[in-house]
Amino acid sequence: MTDSANEGELFAPVGKQRLFESVLDQLEQLIYDGKLQAGDRLPSERALSESLQVSRPSLREALRVLDALDIITVRTGIGASGGTRISDHLGPTISRLMRLYMALGHFDLEDVLHTRHLLEEEAARVAATERTDEQLARLEALLDQMDAAVSDSDTYLALDGKFHVAVALASGNPLLAHLMGSMRDAVTEHLVKRELAPATWPKLASSAQKSHRALVKALRDRDADAAAEQVRRHTAFYDEAAS
Amino acid sequence: MTDSANEGELFAPVGKQRLFESVLDQLEQLIYDGKLQAGDRLPSERALSESLQVSRPSLREALRVLDALDIITVRTGIGASGGTRISDHLGPTISRLMRLYMALGHFDLEDVLHTRHLLEEEAARVAATERTDEQLARLEALLDQMDAAVSDSDTYLALDGKFHVAVALASGNPLLAHLMGSMRDAVTEHLVKRELAPATWPKLASSAQKSHRALVKALRDRDADAAAEQVRRHTAFYDEAAS
Repeated sequence: MTDSANEGELFAPVGKQRLFESVLDQLEQLIYDGKLQAGDRLPSERALSESLQVSRPSLREALRVLDALDIITVRTGIGASGGTRISDHLGPTISRLMRLYMALGHFDLEDVLHTRHLLEEEAARVAATERTDEQLARLEALLDQMDAAVSDSDTYLALDGKFHVAVALASGNPLLAHLMGSMRDAVTEHLVKRELAPATWPKLASSAQKSHRALVKALRDRDADAAAEQVRRHTAFYDEAAS
Repeated sequence: MTDSANEGELFAPVGKQRLFESVLDQLEQLIYDGKLQAGDRLPSERALSESLQVSRPSLREALRVLDALDIITVRTGIGASGGTRISDHLGPTISRLMRLYMALGHFDLEDVLHTRHLLEEEAARVAATERTDEQLARLEALLDQMDAAVSDSDTYLALDGKFHVAVALASGNPLLAHLMGSMRDAVTEHLVKRELAPATWPKLASSAQKSHRALVKALRDRDADAAAEQVRRHTAFYDEAAS
């Protein structure tokens, strides 16, 4: 922690506003004013550069950044399907940033695990009361698929990721699910896949399956405390396996 | 929630990888391999375009996106101070993305508040045991400044933001503080500043000061449960004021 962080300043100061930031601010204002919304097609480049008062090369540069941030979606082609639109879905940008920030040492592994487990426990707690029958059935189907994949760590880990995200989405709070998923990605890519020894894998996976089943039972019973407790046990177990 | 989200897929599928993503992946790998780290100056554009096997215009485009994502810092000037470096500090990108995603309706206000309060409560709980004497003194100094600013809502809100971030940083987990701060920003910009009626402001602020003092007392006493409880009360109070 640097001195400035201790001073309660979360972000380092930036210099003068960069061009894409100015365009972003203006677009944000248009969205808040209800003049643009998710899924809307953007005006033509000419109209846009006039109304935002930036040159067309500058506008193109800014749009490229917005594309990178998943704020707009650029589709090639003309007619109804083509063009540049305000994105109507979440992209993987936050997940990617988390991974990069972790790689750069801005966040420790321990901090990521701590935060991820907090989000995961809360998501399970809320999912216990909010989950639908369809979501429960989906979780049960995933468990069966995971049972069949215990000996194949790549397949198992992919299903495991889907399982935990499905639990989080069953909370009905997609932000919780998105952040939790981003932190899982950051950890899985660079910790689990590297550190978990193949020899201990089958034992680990079948042990994990037991706690997954106990978690799904708690969700079936709509028992929030039991669901949170199962996540606590499960993550403590993974922490130990990874340390 | 769309069908695909219910299927446990957190992100919408993307088409072929975009150029900046490929450059980003390669840089990420270099960072993980220990060949590049935070603060390092990047090789020359020529060397970089050769080693990453992209054209120089393509490289420049990718670097502009990395700059927008706060992964690199570009300083004009030559010599030791100039050039392009791997960023050694956190930027405001996640905060900006949160605001935009909220504006686009990807996240509801309710979801943002729920998640923020979860992070804030945990941060206070951990801060109760982890805070240093300097951090406590800083919080007490901020409280005094806030007392003096109760009648000036802009100054008060700025200090209030610093106070809550300082509590979160005292947890020793900067990721928790960063996410919590990002969500505060998203909510403050578009809810508190718009919705809180000026007439009710002084009463609200002096009431908030009481719970801030109670929180700092809990941190002074190193009482984690009391700290968490104070945050719960404080945020419930704000939720009501904002609803």
